[in-house]
Amino acid sequence: MSERLTHVRADGTAHMVDVSGKPVTARQASAAGRVLLAPAAIAALRDGTVPKGDALAVARVAGLQAAKRTPDLVPLAHPVAVHAVEVDLLVADDGVDISATVRTADRTGIEMEALTSVTVCALTLIDMVKAVDKHARITDVRVTAKSGGRSGDWAEDAGDEGAPV
Amino acid sequence: MSERLTHVRADGTAHMVDVSGKPVTARQASAAGRVLLAPAAIAALRDGTVPKGDALAVARVAGLQAAKRTPDLVPLAHPVAVHAVEVDLLVADDGVDISATVRTADRTGIEMEALTSVTVCALTLIDMVKAVDKHARITDVRVTAKSGGRSGDWAEDAGDEGAPV
Amino acid sequence: MSERLTHVRADGTAHMVDVSGKPVTARQASAAGRVLLAPAAIAALRDGTVPKGDALAVARVAGLQAAKRTPDLVPLAHPVAVHAVEVDLLVADDGVDISATVRTADRTGIEMEALTSVTVCALTLIDMVKAVDKHARITDVRVTAKSGGRSGDWAEDAGDEGAPV
Amino acid sequence: MSERLTHVRADGTAHMVDVSGKPVTARQASAAGRVLLAPAAIAALRDGTVPKGDALAVARVAGLQAAKRTPDLVPLAHPVAVHAVEVDLLVADDGVDISATVRTADRTGIEMEALTSVTVCALTLIDMVKAVDKHARITDVRVTAKSGGRSGDWAEDAGDEGAPV
Amino acid sequence: MSERLTHVRADGTAHMVDVSGKPVTARQASAAGRVLLAPAAIAALRDGTVPKGDALAVARVAGLQAAKRTPDLVPLAHPVAVHAVEVDLLVADDGVDISATVRTADRTGIEMEALTSVTVCALTLIDMVKAVDKHARITDVRVTAKSGGRSGDWAEDAGDEGAPV
Amino acid sequence: MSERLTHVRADGTAHMVDVSGKPVTARQASAAGRVLLAPAAIAALRDGTVPKGDALAVARVAGLQAAKRTPDLVPLAHPVAVHAVEVDLLVADDGVDISATVRTADRTGIEMEALTSVTVCALTLIDMVKAVDKHARITDVRVTAKSGGRSGDWAEDAGDEGAPV
Repeated sequence: MSERLTHVRADGTAHMVDVSGKPVTARQASAAGRVLLAPAAIAALRDGTVPKGDALAVARVAGLQAAKRTPDLVPLAHPVAVHAVEVDLLVADDGVDISATVRTADRTGIEMEALTSVTVCALTLIDMVKAVDKHARITDVRVTAKSGGRSGDWAEDAGDEGAPV
Repeated sequence: MSERLTHVRADGTAHMVDVSGKPVTARQASAAGRVLLAPAAIAALRDGTVPKGDALAVARVAGLQAAKRTPDLVPLAHPVAVHAVEVDLLVADDGVDISATVRTADRTGIEMEALTSVTVCALTLIDMVKAVDKHARITDVRVTAKSGGRSGDWAEDAGDEGAPV
Repeated sequence: MSERLTHVRADGTAHMVDVSGKPVTARQASAAGRVLLAPAAIAALRDGTVPKGDALAVARVAGLQAAKRTPDLVPLAHPVAVHAVEVDLLVADDGVDISATVRTADRTGIEMEALTSVTVCALTLIDMVKAVDKHARITDVRVTAKSGGRSGDWAEDAGDEGAPV
Repeated sequence: MSERLTHVRADGTAHMVDVSGKPVTARQASAAGRVLLAPAAIAALRDGTVPKGDALAVARVAGLQAAKRTPDLVPLAHPVAVHAVEVDLLVADDGVDISATVRTADRTGIEMEALTSVTVCALTLIDMVKAVDKHARITDVRVTAKSGGRSGDWAEDAGDEGAPV
Repeated sequence: MSERLTHVRADGTAHMVDVSGKPVTARQASAAGRVLLAPAAIAALRDGTVPKGDALAVARVAGLQAAKRTPDLVPLAHPVAVHAVEVDLLVADDGVDISATVRTADRTGIEMEALTSVTVCALTLIDMVKAVDKHARITDVRVTAKSGGRSGDWAEDAGDEGAPV
Repeated sequence: MSERLTHVRADGTAHMVDVSGKPVTARQASAAGRVLLAPAAIAALRDGTVPKGDALAVARVAGLQAAKRTPDLVPLAHPVAVHAVEVDLLVADDGVDISATVRTADRTGIEMEALTSVTVCALTLIDMVKAVDKHARITDVRVTAKSGGRSGDWAEDAGDEGAPV
């Protein structure tokens, strides 16, 4: 298979890339995103009066779990032994900022796990507040930092000199 | 339980809202979003040279499946019998526009299914092209139209007179 | 199949019982259970100092979700369209009392959904506090009330004149 | 969407076919298949000496559960409320005959559920006996009968005048 | 993240604890519990006349599988590579004693896997016999032994000098 | 547990075999199978006119994903960290030949992952073409090659001197 499971197939069809030759290294990735919300939803989040209940806590749990569900959702993602997940939600005046950090020691990066965690957290937040805000919008979901692996460390805050994925 | 499973609990804790009193009606929802990509990724999509294989086809399948996975991902979402799903990807010069339409006949809306479909399609697209674009970004994910259910029909294109969720 | 999918097979082997002849009726079931905990865990729950975070909120979300996972866990359980779930946790001096109420309109009872909700909530609570209590114990998990369906209504509090399952 | 979710898309891309216009009817489907096994495996099954344990019982349970997992495995399959499942295994001299019957009342057929049940039962049987038979082979998996739905009843035994799917 | 993914977060919110610094060691855990049953259910189990079929075999398979499902059910549980699972059911005069032993080599304990295995086995047993016993009750679910990991070995039978979790 | 989790239990009941004593080695397995199809289905595949859309692409994605779902489907299969998957579909005059190759580095073989990949790919292909072919049939699903692990390398093409499982 060393000839067959390369990164590109002759006919361009999809395959799960072979990572068996890559070393196991400690890896960490962070992602972030934002859910834009109406003032009524922001007020309900701040006052703790969202009708379906504690929206921020439920969205956080959904985000934490979603990191583990990544290979079920993304067809060609490799199964990864997730070692740690953190999800933060910060209520701002026009929305909620979501960030997630995931850590592992494996043969492949976990940027997809961090992105999935942020995204499912955002979907859940929308589900929680949809009775009070019918125009929620997910925006700016991206990798913000990574470390470990062959391509080196990178962080959004440090400028665009490296590469997040 | 008619007293207990109301839309708001006295202590503000989370619960799955009772929909058993709502009528079964035909419902449809559409959502859309965009994955911003670098020119190299756009070129690879247009040329069919994405290393992991046919990115658009894999992302479409992931989006179609994700509509069925919504209640697994979003903790308080109701299980819904999905009757139809369509996912479209349109490659533009600076990204890929994703849209999804979901249809059912049930007691509750399927806006979350449409949003989940778009979002997982977007995550998969990022996974497919990450070898050639390390700065992909998901943006503008929102409900674009809905019909059926108590709150009436609405469409983004028709102006903001109604409500998508 | 009217001859074949009866409630008992000639050879005693397992099968999913045929419910296609049963009417769709509104059904509700409640279950309860208790997690016995050491004083240190009770104190941490009351003070909000559980190291892994807000144990009661996470356990509640796990319980709410688990009602939807019942047919995945219990091999011969029928898929049921869950319409509502409530999970309550009450911290007592020697443990946490858990109760769950589930509602549907379907051809078969949802006692298993209520029991699964309580049980997974209990497992999650143990996972949350295990760093401070190494002897947690789940006890007294049972159906406490049911209504709808052929076998009539029943409630534990009303005496043992009916049947919960 | 009545224009959009038709059975064929203009660009030939995949979609979940719209069944919302189809009536809910009682439906039943049967499928069958065979796992070809070496004499040593047949003997172990008959003597109850399969090293991993009671192979037939485990394979039966796996087949019963698999009917419920069909929409998770087959990307464009509709979620179906499975009402009954039966799985039979018959040990013959050169293999094991597997058959499954599934019943529902829904808008779409459940032939895929019956086929999935047979197939996962077969995979599990191979997993159970692989220590004693390294050349097991699944063969002749097909729909053997169906009833309900628009296309009418059909059975393999009754000749090839109708259509199973 | 070495500063961020500690065992306690400043705001007390939930997170998946970082285990990436813990060594991979061989670990084993056992759990036990009991399902209290009416004489009619005990008789049906002993006579093999449970209407839904071989209840003990189905409950055993459900328990074996459930060990693998733990991270799907318990939101903050780490994914663990399960290496072995055993589930035992012993029919007594007033109920069924269930025990499970799970083994792995990983960075974190598998007590939750053993508890989940016992609990889902118990739920399945109740599902199997509910037609003949409407008052089944799960009780005394707890860790009974553990070995491996930093906190040392422990067994219920050896007295309460150690710690199971 | 070294005494308890052996390969055979005294009472013949099912258990997940203990692999904790086996070394981690690079392993690869291939499987193949065939879906027999009517000329109308073959023509539709060749012309790209299958009503549900691009059948070969969807079946391929389903097969790739299924390798990761094996421990969810096969009750006693060990979780395995899949490192690579390839699925090929070749349209012949009377059917479609499916083959899959899976690679890992783990304590147990991945023949079951390769077989599951082929089988779910075949089921999906049938689902895609069932509107034009009501007599599709899965046949000849078997392991075709393996390498790594204690039992040595083997390939169908090289004769029957070794053992695939």
